[in-house]
Amino acid sequence: MLEQLKQQVLEANLALPRHNLVTFTWGNVSAIDRTLGVVVIKPSGVEYAGMTADDMVVVELATGSVVEGNKKPSSDTATHLALYRKFSAIGGIVHTHSRHATIWSQAGLDLPAWGTTHADYFYGAIPCTRRMTANEIAGEYEHLTGEVIIETFVKRNIDPMQVPAVLVNSHGPFAWGKDAADAVHNAVVLEECAYMGIFSRQLTPNLGDMQQELLDKHYLRKHGAGAYYGQGACP
Amino acid sequence: MLEQLKQQVLEANLALPRHNLVTFTWGNVSAIDRTLGVVVIKPSGVEYAGMTADDMVVVELATGSVVEGNKKPSSDTATHLALYRKFSAIGGIVHTHSRHATIWSQAGLDLPAWGTTHADYFYGAIPCTRRMTANEIAGEYEHLTGEVIIETFVKRNIDPMQVPAVLVNSHGPFAWGKDAADAVHNAVVLEECAYMGIFSRQLTPNLGDMQQELLDKHYLRKHGAGAYYGQGACP
Amino acid sequence: MLEQLKQQVLEANLALPRHNLVTFTWGNVSAIDRTLGVVVIKPSGVEYAGMTADDMVVVELATGSVVEGNKKPSSDTATHLALYRKFSAIGGIVHTHSRHATIWSQAGLDLPAWGTTHADYFYGAIPCTRRMTANEIAGEYEHLTGEVIIETFVKRNIDPMQVPAVLVNSHGPFAWGKDAADAVHNAVVLEECAYMGIFSRQLTPNLGDMQQELLDKHYLRKHGAGAYYGQGACP
Amino acid sequence: MLEQLKQQVLEANLALPRHNLVTFTWGNVSAIDRTLGVVVIKPSGVEYAGMTADDMVVVELATGSVVEGNKKPSSDTATHLALYRKFSAIGGIVHTHSRHATIWSQAGLDLPAWGTTHADYFYGAIPCTRRMTANEIAGEYEHLTGEVIIETFVKRNIDPMQVPAVLVNSHGPFAWGKDAADAVHNAVVLEECAYMGIFSRQLTPNLGDMQQELLDKHYLRKHGAGAYYGQGACP
Repeated sequence: MLEQLKQQVLEANLALPRHNLVTFTWGNVSAIDRTLGVVVIKPSGVEYAGMTADDMVVVELATGSVVEGNKKPSSDTATHLALYRKFSAIGGIVHTHSRHATIWSQAGLDLPAWGTTHADYFYGAIPCTRRMTANEIAGEYEHLTGEVIIETFVKRNIDPMQVPAVLVNSHGPFAWGKDAADAVHNAVVLEECAYMGIFSRQLTPNLGDMQQELLDKHYLRKHGAGAYYGQGACP
Repeated sequence: MLEQLKQQVLEANLALPRHNLVTFTWGNVSAIDRTLGVVVIKPSGVEYAGMTADDMVVVELATGSVVEGNKKPSSDTATHLALYRKFSAIGGIVHTHSRHATIWSQAGLDLPAWGTTHADYFYGAIPCTRRMTANEIAGEYEHLTGEVIIETFVKRNIDPMQVPAVLVNSHGPFAWGKDAADAVHNAVVLEECAYMGIFSRQLTPNLGDMQQELLDKHYLRKHGAGAYYGQGACP
Repeated sequence: MLEQLKQQVLEANLALPRHNLVTFTWGNVSAIDRTLGVVVIKPSGVEYAGMTADDMVVVELATGSVVEGNKKPSSDTATHLALYRKFSAIGGIVHTHSRHATIWSQAGLDLPAWGTTHADYFYGAIPCTRRMTANEIAGEYEHLTGEVIIETFVKRNIDPMQVPAVLVNSHGPFAWGKDAADAVHNAVVLEECAYMGIFSRQLTPNLGDMQQELLDKHYLRKHGAGAYYGQGACP
Repeated sequence: MLEQLKQQVLEANLALPRHNLVTFTWGNVSAIDRTLGVVVIKPSGVEYAGMTADDMVVVELATGSVVEGNKKPSSDTATHLALYRKFSAIGGIVHTHSRHATIWSQAGLDLPAWGTTHADYFYGAIPCTRRMTANEIAGEYEHLTGEVIIETFVKRNIDPMQVPAVLVNSHGPFAWGKDAADAVHNAVVLEECAYMGIFSRQLTPNLGDMQQELLDKHYLRKHGAGAYYGQGACP
């Protein structure tokens, strides 16, 4: 039964280099089977070329223990698990060091909503987390990275399914979605918006947010109850 | 009779990813048959890979009703139609979120004419539209996007065939031309000039317009009555 | 006898898209046979794909008249001819609108020598020409573009074989060399240095010239009498 | 016995264009056999396409004399040798003019540690050397380039195996590692960090160093005694 999920996670991982989101092995995608309570994730430090579905590692959602697979899971596994546990609508998660999203992470800044490209996928700014404390870094670091992401969304009252990405301070982006492919899709859009944001701000240094009405319009025409973009059934 | 036009529109759409103007399905090209009063346009949210001429949708110029095709037309169809109705010389239109033109759109700035690359194709700055009002956004949004583009050209007295592109504020570019291929050609040039403009302005922050005489010279040697560029008949 | 030169000019032209120096047909390379007093140049507005040696046009150095070929020569032919006439050591010339060199042209600035990459090929800053006068633009424009380039080198006492490139103000770069391939090689280096220069200056806004001693060392170890780079005979 | 090392050096050299680190022949990789006291290095000014293991040149570590090979060694050989002599843990060295690392070299600035991408490979800022003196440039220039690199690490008390790269002022980067492949790997990471650093600093002009605790954590989880990244044996 997990073969299909492993295949999806493999394909989502292989999509990362195709979309120029990763250098070497700097990225990982996972997906969850909530019925079985397990997460399928990329193995740690393994190259994309030649990777197969059998290389994917299955871990328990509750404990992180490896259930299946003969490789170590991604070193970021605990971050993924924290997000899956807290946000039950998330079906897939991706982490990369994609260049331009990482630039915003390094700069320690939110990526504002500055155009309809952003608004078509993200209902507001992509938040940047606070710096982690020395204790958090010295402790269960990867797990606490997840907790700091969660704190960011909870404290700022952001719905993670409406803003399906985050910029981890001094680190890089995580993105997510209803499944692994959707998570990768959002990671690509984030990277695109991050690139354009750098230079939009260069041209207009004190650029304010886009109009709330326009943000509403674009986000909701694709994601609201009355969505009319694409080939889905029309209301 | 429309088979040829569908094929041209297909090929123009397929040229977008080849010229790196689109990510995913973020772009659409249309062309018009003014005798029949119909517009052929890309279907909404369909991937470029595997797209065929039969996927193209035929809509009525006057009403936007689908005349032929089993897919929904691009969600931007109403914008295309508004432009075709107002500007009778336009034969093809393209909309993309190409990175650097979109950056100028997001920054809310005209792209000035800063060199002969620009002057060879555009007879002056590429205008950026005003922001749309809340009412316009809440109303027939895609149609009114077209109307705001038209307002920009009319109010500023710009000939849309001499400046065949626009930057829609907080959104991205539209370009057009005598047919679908020509529209894509102009979209590529716009993207090139948008890229170079960002960094020309970085090097010389208060860069003034290029000389009017040089703009005249370059635009007219390719587009004026005495054009002598390329292999066309010489006067 | 010109077949070999046509082949070289063809190959140099085809190298332009391979090195990402051109969009569409925005570039042209020529080479000279000084014994015969003729220049072989790319035809005007013809696409690189499918271009053959037979498409190359042969023009007289003295007059610019077409001697051989059934296409019109590049619209920039008169600029090439002016340079060949004045600078007898030039064997090949290339003109492009390569992105980053063009950015410096549009900004109206010299590209300073800021590192050994530059110093390995160019013995000092790449000069930017003055703006042309209204009269020059209205007159024999392409020929006078060449004359303004010549004026730049003569007035500033720059040896065109030591600094084998120029930035034409509001337009783009020309580069040259001992033959067509060498000219393209210099155009690639120019583009590389132009890219790096934009961001070197961003990091250090008032960046001064590189040390004269280092410029001397690098230029002369490749180009001086005692050159010891590459596989040539060692002194 | 050196055949294997030559093959490794060849492959590491061929990896440079694949990772977009070089234009033309602007890069060279070497590796050392400390038992035999010889270094295998790329020949000078030879193109990557068609290069074979037999083209690699073997030189004596102590003297730089060519021991094997019918081509001249890279003109940067003396720099490599100086580093091998001083730092006994270095097994492979690479020199490139990769665009973004070179930009920092030209700007004359250290590349600060601004994120975990950097921290995963480099335990602190990548230092930029001081400018060389006129005497150094006029003297054994390539050898003294190595000496200035050494001085940088010694004076600033940087462990070259913890920060396996340097930015040579007004020139470009050198990187190294336990073998040739590792050196290239570090050169790729350096280029990535150099790119991201330019724009991180653009977004946050007075960006301070990343937290020491985070730098420690990331560097040590991959390089310390208790490393747990990748598929290596777990403690």
